[in-house]
Amino acid sequence: MKTIDYRHTDIEAGFFGDLQEKNATVSVQNIYQRFSETGRFRAMKCVRDDAHKPHIFWDSDIAKWLESVAYILAKREDAQLRRWADEAITDICASQLPCGYFNCYFQVYEPENIFQKRTEHELYCAGHLIEAAVALHEAGVDERLLAAMIRYADYIYERFYEKKDAGFFTCGHPEIELALVRLYGVTKQEKYLRLVRYFLDERGKHGEETYLFTYPIYHVDHQPVREMRTAEGHAVRALYLYIAMADMARIDGDGELAAACEAIFEDILAKKMYITGGTGSSFHGETFTFAYDLPNQFAYSETCAGIALCLFCDRLAKRKNRAKYHDIFERALYNVVLAGESQDGKGFFYVNPLEMHESLYDYNEGLRQKLFCPIPERVEVFDCSCCPPNLTRFLESIGSYIYGVEEGRILINQYISSHTHIGETSVRIRSQMPYCGKIGVSVAGTADLRLRVPSWQNGMQVRVNGKKVCSVSIEDEYLCIQCNGNTEIELDFCMQPRFVYANENVWYDNGRRAVEYGPLVLCGESVDNGKNLRAVRIPSLEGAQVQTEGEFSLTLPAVRLHTGPALYSTQAPTEEAISLRLIPYFAWANRGKGDMQIWWLP
Amino acid sequence: MKTIDYRHTDIEAGFFGDLQEKNATVSVQNIYQRFSETGRFRAMKCVRDDAHKPHIFWDSDIAKWLESVAYILAKREDAQLRRWADEAITDICASQLPCGYFNCYFQVYEPENIFQKRTEHELYCAGHLIEAAVALHEAGVDERLLAAMIRYADYIYERFYEKKDAGFFTCGHPEIELALVRLYGVTKQEKYLRLVRYFLDERGKHGEETYLFTYPIYHVDHQPVREMRTAEGHAVRALYLYIAMADMARIDGDGELAAACEAIFEDILAKKMYITGGTGSSFHGETFTFAYDLPNQFAYSETCAGIALCLFCDRLAKRKNRAKYHDIFERALYNVVLAGESQDGKGFFYVNPLEMHESLYDYNEGLRQKLFCPIPERVEVFDCSCCPPNLTRFLESIGSYIYGVEEGRILINQYISSHTHIGETSVRIRSQMPYCGKIGVSVAGTADLRLRVPSWQNGMQVRVNGKKVCSVSIEDEYLCIQCNGNTEIELDFCMQPRFVYANENVWYDNGRRAVEYGPLVLCGESVDNGKNLRAVRIPSLEGAQVQTEGEFSLTLPAVRLHTGPALYSTQAPTEEAISLRLIPYFAWANRGKGDMQIWWLP
Repeated sequence: MKTIDYRHTDIEAGFFGDLQEKNATVSVQNIYQRFSETGRFRAMKCVRDDAHKPHIFWDSDIAKWLESVAYILAKREDAQLRRWADEAITDICASQLPCGYFNCYFQVYEPENIFQKRTEHELYCAGHLIEAAVALHEAGVDERLLAAMIRYADYIYERFYEKKDAGFFTCGHPEIELALVRLYGVTKQEKYLRLVRYFLDERGKHGEETYLFTYPIYHVDHQPVREMRTAEGHAVRALYLYIAMADMARIDGDGELAAACEAIFEDILAKKMYITGGTGSSFHGETFTFAYDLPNQFAYSETCAGIALCLFCDRLAKRKNRAKYHDIFERALYNVVLAGESQDGKGFFYVNPLEMHESLYDYNEGLRQKLFCPIPERVEVFDCSCCPPNLTRFLESIGSYIYGVEEGRILINQYISSHTHIGETSVRIRSQMPYCGKIGVSVAGTADLRLRVPSWQNGMQVRVNGKKVCSVSIEDEYLCIQCNGNTEIELDFCMQPRFVYANENVWYDNGRRAVEYGPLVLCGESVDNGKNLRAVRIPSLEGAQVQTEGEFSLTLPAVRLHTGPALYSTQAPTEEAISLRLIPYFAWANRGKGDMQIWWLP
Repeated sequence: MKTIDYRHTDIEAGFFGDLQEKNATVSVQNIYQRFSETGRFRAMKCVRDDAHKPHIFWDSDIAKWLESVAYILAKREDAQLRRWADEAITDICASQLPCGYFNCYFQVYEPENIFQKRTEHELYCAGHLIEAAVALHEAGVDERLLAAMIRYADYIYERFYEKKDAGFFTCGHPEIELALVRLYGVTKQEKYLRLVRYFLDERGKHGEETYLFTYPIYHVDHQPVREMRTAEGHAVRALYLYIAMADMARIDGDGELAAACEAIFEDILAKKMYITGGTGSSFHGETFTFAYDLPNQFAYSETCAGIALCLFCDRLAKRKNRAKYHDIFERALYNVVLAGESQDGKGFFYVNPLEMHESLYDYNEGLRQKLFCPIPERVEVFDCSCCPPNLTRFLESIGSYIYGVEEGRILINQYISSHTHIGETSVRIRSQMPYCGKIGVSVAGTADLRLRVPSWQNGMQVRVNGKKVCSVSIEDEYLCIQCNGNTEIELDFCMQPRFVYANENVWYDNGRRAVEYGPLVLCGESVDNGKNLRAVRIPSLEGAQVQTEGEFSLTLPAVRLHTGPALYSTQAPTEEAISLRLIPYFAWANRGKGDMQIWWLP
């Protein structure tokens, strides 16, 4: 399947239109300010500044911010963003070493250790700079960074592939691999694919170790990639590697890589994914742990891992399309990914827990040595601030994940209000997602149209040109509609709240159930419902009222269990009938600190 | 209330008689062997041996072993134990410095740092050596160690109290305080109480800090002792301090100390104690954390903290008797404390989790950096092996916690088969505890007898000299029986299995219930019931069958929830009727590794 690029897709007014507006007018500006204050932009000048000593991954922060700006400027002019981007690009190009190398930390602080420390993110930073350069080029914004990054990529090729004189074989944090695939996409230089193949092939063969946490499985270096069958190690590292593996499985028609990718995807889907699409169940090492280990309070579930899972789905679908990839993309997008950002567009979560108890985190705050990673409210910048600009670049390029073309058919994979042209055919989606399952699709021209049927639909209704279609044709979870001339399609996926149960092996959720609505996982917060939501039962969904005016919510009759003051008692809890207000998980923690709950007693 | 000393109480055949037999013939020997192999006994010679470099707390391991042997030799001769003890005492006395100081680590490895590092357990070790010396003296086994430890205590008095030239004010790990109270008990030297008062008074005034974890609250140095109202910090350190505070509240009639002790006890009882009597909810720092934070899988609940809670109850009761102190003593004794030892008497738990999932610990085992502290099976020795000899000394002195005398009344606080003489009166208990609530008490002589009514009794029946007593007199949870001449009392506390519910604020237990039987918390193991016991419901106790032949168990109808293979599904779990076998919590993990569960779905 080929997907239609964001450049050829116009996001229209609606849920994602609003998000992009906020993204382009608030988030990207605010991240610029925070990155400026912390010295990140100045660091691109590669002038020693001990008061703002760069972190080893600052290059990648700036790169993802530049990539976000590329996607914005492709769609709308913004003189200030363009000027800020120009300055950063100018600084990077001016600081690049004659050999092509660029890294704001190593050049200045440890030049003797260039390409010597595999866990220090050099090639990860290079990868993000390459991605930014490709994005700026494709957006028609800038050519200087692409030229500079081609030189850098060539230098990496020389050192790692030709001379093999670097201090390690593969980078501790995958990213360069998928970036080189993108660089190949615009340069068509085979050498970049050669280098990707080399980095993939060397992984898992050398048992390279360095310090704390960075034993092989942590940086996904525990076995050769073609032998991998399960998701292991640091979730973001792992998923970035899997993205590149899926890219190369497609490009090379590499069946062994494809088999590895598909097995890993099934392992995540069946055993290692939170209901929100989050991955990484332990904050110790930010890792995948073992099958069904999905603690809610102590989830890591990094925003970047959510985005990476979406990208892995996208790459798998490009190789061999399956509706399930778009289902999981949708789950991760509307839940863990969107939860990464505050409603005002300024604050971000790195870690996305699925349950919050304020007192737990108040206690944690008071400790010298922190016990828990999740925080109860989003913040504007982190020391390791990978997630904020990752989210802005992803939201701004969301147009790349809506439409596909496969064997002459036009596929609609995500229901996001937008408009595109595919050949002679124009397609427009008017979607009320994620709060309502009513979707209009207007096709002008001829199309063998395939519309993905979401796995959550509660009895689909279809009208074509005003006429109800009683017998719909569904193939492989896609609704098939042949369009000749102007065709108006009205879909209703009939959203209804539903209970969802976790597998019996998920200890943390046994005897509990979650409430979903369309693609949304819902949660309750103490600001609406009081403290200790773990003691609340939802016996039934009867009487649930959806509120779509203003902020979306679902209000339903529930029961709060009460005990007396004793710590242990032979008296069974008493039951109080309450009205419980649920909101989308992604909207939590926007009204102050408090408790949050997804899994409820039955 | 005065309690009757273990020397004046003979434990008779029965549950504790068997435990003491195993203790005296297996456990103490086996600990000796393990401590010998690891170089602990040889270390008492204070000869440098880098291959077996002593840990800073090895003195205390040997001291608690010696104390165990004192209690054994007070009751029965054992030539080998006596010889081993003699050798250790000879080594300690020979190695003691002329000034009186003794520490097998500091003398040899860091003589320049004697009394300079407050977190390095020097006074903790001294305290345990003093306790051993007092016990050996009281048991009539040895006088040399007492003489040596009086010299050591005098040296501590000189350095800390008179000259105040030590490098710190109070020891990071309390223990010296309660040991000095015991030393005062045999010497009647006021100076030792003066030193206890000083150590108590200085605590919380200096904000002494050293390294990781050892900020003030961790070593219970965060506020003056009389201002304390809640249990905080490292559980064992805290409880040892509270024991000394209760001792001094009694001895000095110090109302402020008494108020602090009582408030702390209520805080533990109402908010910070596991159903097993375990304390310390976090393995990070082995600490009390905050109210209602009682995770089951990740409990610390150290065996030593269980013993310390018993001792705190004992000291509180001595100051002002209340049945609740003996209730909590009983809960901790029959659950967390006894869980510390394997059925063969050789293996020990340091950490006592309330839920075990084998795969979690298998995963932990494979990690470079461990995430969890609990282990799934007991081991014979730890690097920090404080719990094994603490348990042996406690079990061997259990006779000290059965009988009390208060205002001329004779109190029976624990139902342990035993015999004592109090004045002219002889009292014998024949108890079927903990598996049956039938207890016989024979009194020869006159007694205003008070028998504690356990809080768990299910409808008490009383016969005196064969005649049923229809209207029993109960005062303050004690049954009152006036005995004149030979009196045979038959009690039946009518044990029945019962459900127990945790307070609504205990997140980990919401929507679940435990099963207790008499003083026992019951648990289920996968060796009897298969994996994933968190998905098992106990809808009712109807049909529960008690098995008392052989190993005690309770078998009852239950329901296992099953889901399909999907990680998330809209299908509610199906229910399978099963027969669930529960055993006493203390008996878990004696039949190989597996899962264990206390809290069940309803």
